[in-house]
Amino acid sequence: MLQNIRVVLVNTSHPGNIGGAARAMKNMGLSQLVLVQPEDFPSGEAVARASGATDVLDAALVVDTLEEALTGCSVVLGTSARDRRIPWPLLDPRECASTSLEHLEQGGQVALVFGREYAGLTNEELQRCHFHVHIPSDPEFGSLNLAAAVQVLTYEVRMAWLAQQGQPTKMAKLETTAMLNSQLVTVEELEAYFRHLEQTLIAIRFLDPEKPRHLMARLRRLYGRCAISRLEMNILRGILTETQKVVDGAACKKGEE
Amino acid sequence: MLQNIRVVLVNTSHPGNIGGAARAMKNMGLSQLVLVQPEDFPSGEAVARASGATDVLDAALVVDTLEEALTGCSVVLGTSARDRRIPWPLLDPRECASTSLEHLEQGGQVALVFGREYAGLTNEELQRCHFHVHIPSDPEFGSLNLAAAVQVLTYEVRMAWLAQQGQPTKMAKLETTAMLNSQLVTVEELEAYFRHLEQTLIAIRFLDPEKPRHLMARLRRLYGRCAISRLEMNILRGILTETQKVVDGAACKKGEE
Repeated sequence: MLQNIRVVLVNTSHPGNIGGAARAMKNMGLSQLVLVQPEDFPSGEAVARASGATDVLDAALVVDTLEEALTGCSVVLGTSARDRRIPWPLLDPRECASTSLEHLEQGGQVALVFGREYAGLTNEELQRCHFHVHIPSDPEFGSLNLAAAVQVLTYEVRMAWLAQQGQPTKMAKLETTAMLNSQLVTVEELEAYFRHLEQTLIAIRFLDPEKPRHLMARLRRLYGRCAISRLEMNILRGILTETQKVVDGAACKKGEE
Repeated sequence: MLQNIRVVLVNTSHPGNIGGAARAMKNMGLSQLVLVQPEDFPSGEAVARASGATDVLDAALVVDTLEEALTGCSVVLGTSARDRRIPWPLLDPRECASTSLEHLEQGGQVALVFGREYAGLTNEELQRCHFHVHIPSDPEFGSLNLAAAVQVLTYEVRMAWLAQQGQPTKMAKLETTAMLNSQLVTVEELEAYFRHLEQTLIAIRFLDPEKPRHLMARLRRLYGRCAISRLEMNILRGILTETQKVVDGAACKKGEE
């Protein structure tokens, strides 16, 4: 589905940015790059910065006008760094992603349009867009690198797409889940640990049963929030068992005196 | 508040990426850049790519070790592109941002750590991190440009921060803050704890220094994700101190035999 999103770069000056944009796109699973009158393309610098995303560069469509670049799209989202005289429906990158997904789901083609490095999109170009997208940068230093802007918008699209697919946004989530969740200790195991811990703390004389204060409550709060796995619990229990052996050894020696 | 987030770049090869990272940071309102053994810095290429964010470059701290870079931090989030043998608590960029915000709200310092362009972070470096962060890229072309990765993570932090600014503080948050005493331990305190823990585990013969296996890594992973308060750390350290007294007592008795 993500192949139905095209990234449109208008009048890009630096070929390195085209390469960086191609890499960002491919990282996020996009492949359709359209270049409107690039100043310097094809270019070795673009290939270098693409760092392996040369297939995206090779397949890039070079056109003369924004209108051509937008052929067949059902929604056009244009990045804008500035306030415009005519206010336009303005989205943040996350809203841009959800709007894009809505159109993709209905079989539409989506265009994400990025302007020139220094001047952005002209008012005329912005008026060809259905929505303006603003990356919420620091107003005092607001202009992102072109490839960085492509990275942010395509990242948000991928996050939205993964969520929609029901796919984890985290690699190895299965493993982590297996590790940290499906093998989490039960309440009973945790309670058994607290009993063992309390006995050991008394044995090493860290906890005075006459004056327990809030010690066990504090330890409960700490370990309670940690989502302890069974493996970790075995380690914690092992530490207590070895500690008690030392205590018993010491007591034994005392008894021998 | 965002000034309490530091971006830590480990062993960066290309100065252009340092510049790109600085620009991305400044765009998102961040200013603290720490460079661990950069290969080429200061550099004209970094200045060029920073495109005006030279103040961030000028103020960048250059250090020799990751440990130094993490001084004073209460939470360390390291980017990881690969599956690891020991799975670690794994966050996506959005979860990374909310975790960062939680620590910032409690007055903590946050480190976002990025590895080498080609090799990422080593296992040892990753084990110094409390959480791993993975940008959900296409598995078939997964490796983002370094500055692009900085852009994504700092963008998410800014989004979370903006959302937080617009909302009244929730009761639950106040409660958590009160609960944790707003005094999270720093990385140094946690490292000191791990050293103390390791010594103690060797002393009670739970840890065999000849065959350490993954024991300390597993304990790091457990305690790293718990957001331990200073009060809790005092308790944990107290337990170790008392345990060692028992060990010393036992050794002493043995010596008397």
